Amino acid sequence: MSEGVTLHLDEDAPSKQASVLRNALHLLPEVPAGTPIEVVVHGEGISLARPGGPVSVSLAEALAAGITLVACHNTMQAQGLTSDDLVPQAVVVPSGVGHLVRRQREGWAYVRP
Amino acid sequence: MSEGVTLHLDEDAPSKQASVLRNALHLLPEVPAGTPIEVVVHGEGISLARPGGPVSVSLAEALAAGITLVACHNTMQAQGLTSDDLVPQAVVVPSGVGHLVRRQREGWAYVRP
Amino acid sequence: MSEGVTLHLDEDAPSKQASVLRNALHLLPEVPAGTPIEVVVHGEGISLARPGGPVSVSLAEALAAGITLVACHNTMQAQGLTSDDLVPQAVVVPSGVGHLVRRQREGWAYVRP
Repeated sequence: MSEGVTLHLDEDAPSKQASVLRNALHLLPEVPAGTPIEVVVHGEGISLARPGGPVSVSLAEALAAGITLVACHNTMQAQGLTSDDLVPQAVVVPSGVGHLVRRQREGWAYVRP
Repeated sequence: MSEGVTLHLDEDAPSKQASVLRNALHLLPEVPAGTPIEVVVHGEGISLARPGGPVSVSLAEALAAGITLVACHNTMQAQGLTSDDLVPQAVVVPSGVGHLVRRQREGWAYVRP
Repeated sequence: MSEGVTLHLDEDAPSKQASVLRNALHLLPEVPAGTPIEVVVHGEGISLARPGGPVSVSLAEALAAGITLVACHNTMQAQGLTSDDLVPQAVVVPSGVGHLVRRQREGWAYVRP
């Protein structure tokens, strides 16, 4: 099955970011093997994608478990960030919100913790 | 029509919880008779499912009107709760987020107030 | 393509409201020309639809760009508001949450920033 799940994060609070990563990890045993799970960050949520943040250990665990981190280029531009400012695993898309819409068109589930 | 509506709640604030219950009640006249409406609680939202909370009167009203309350077992485990700690009407599912994804696969609408 | 995008707003904070409008504007180049984009306001989010608010310049810009502002009549009633209290471009629907569900039934994407 190729339809995955997108989790939407646009908040900066470490407790919220940790909780979204936990949600993503808890999803793994709930979906068929190979189902892609993405955490899409934009706006204030982009801080999750920066190295050395307060939840970087949880992020590393999620990435190691196969969760994909998707970062919004619009936000990066607004904050003066380049790919070099993000963890190397971050997948940059032109627009985070545009990506969320596209995924729903493709049949992915959408969860906004 | 069997496709229902899931309302997603993972916050603890009584004002937010009351507002989600109000949203669920306001939905009733908006959907075809018999359309199931669920409030799915996980994370900090699980407090809604505990008896005697600050919005327990609103909860009782929603349950009496036919709204289903769905509680996340992952969260219960993390907080050391069993079914005995929740209102008896709560329907426990293994994972709240997994349930939200499953419902969308089944064609249910998703609203995150 | 007639399936559009609904952005869901039920918060009062000007920074959140400005961010939702920015999200809507950023979506425009991401979707096929003519795709409708709506910002649906209910609950505390209704303040966005009142004239002269802190983000009224951003709202005017979004409306001029073709974004539709949809306001919840249930909320208006609860707050003692009539259409005369909202910007003239606001489209009033009986229930904001009911509208969000209906749009998903029609195949629209749902984003809750």
